Amino acid sequence: MKLHHIVLIAVTLLTVSSAAFAQFQNAEKAIDYRQSVMTVISTHFGRIGSAIKGDTPYNKEEVAKNTAIVAMLSTLPWQAFGPDTEGGKAQTNIWSDNAKFKVAADKMQLATANLNVAAQSGDLASVKKAFSATGQTCKGCHDDFKKK
Amino acid sequence: MKLHHIVLIAVTLLTVSSAAFAQFQNAEKAIDYRQSVMTVISTHFGRIGSAIKGDTPYNKEEVAKNTAIVAMLSTLPWQAFGPDTEGGKAQTNIWSDNAKFKVAADKMQLATANLNVAAQSGDLASVKKAFSATGQTCKGCHDDFKKK
Repeated sequence: MKLHHIVLIAVTLLTVSSAAFAQFQNAEKAIDYRQSVMTVISTHFGRIGSAIKGDTPYNKEEVAKNTAIVAMLSTLPWQAFGPDTEGGKAQTNIWSDNAKFKVAADKMQLATANLNVAAQSGDLASVKKAFSATGQTCKGCHDDFKKK
Repeated sequence: MKLHHIVLIAVTLLTVSSAAFAQFQNAEKAIDYRQSVMTVISTHFGRIGSAIKGDTPYNKEEVAKNTAIVAMLSTLPWQAFGPDTEGGKAQTNIWSDNAKFKVAADKMQLATANLNVAAQSGDLASVKKAFSATGQTCKGCHDDFKKK
């Protein structure tokens, strides 16, 4: 996959507004959906981490495929934190301080898009830096908005 | 997103072999991953269905975004049906008749790629036809390999 295609995908998906999707039938469906997306993100993000830490051999193509998956999935969970979907591991301040949550969500999406760009280039130093920056957006949001 | 980009994504991801991914830590992680992917696929496939059945207004852009998501996700679950990952709703014939399972998995991926191409064109009749064909690959595989 060429760099400009990856960037295009990321930019296209970032423009998907939450209003662009039909609502969930109920809170349970929304919680199941967002937790599922996070599970898949976590799996592929972990694989990128293993590769850049040297736990597994660094393969540029594989890392780039994993970052493309993460970049795409990063656009999805937020639609499932709509009104009346409290529950799961979500803290209530997602809804009471929703503007702050949205900023955190945007940061994570931009960081994963940057990570994906770095991975397509294959420059390990850039990938490491972007991976770390992305991980910080995950941690920051979890610290503030996810139950321990 | 342009048609040729979408096709490129689908083709690129179809070439991701199961060997391309690190193994899962254990069966539980594999089961959680594959069930999560299926949950997300099901959500977006359902939205396409609602749109083409007229339950929600037909919006070409939205349908195309949902089919792009489904096409990408369709490449992911299979890696999580590796050796020693029996469990969940998976029937044991996935492992005892693995060649047949792989044929079913490939059919589903090709059908979703076709659905995605149809959705990018925006021709409702083509989308309906491709949606139905994709749904049949889901049902066929579930009938044969998923516990009731």
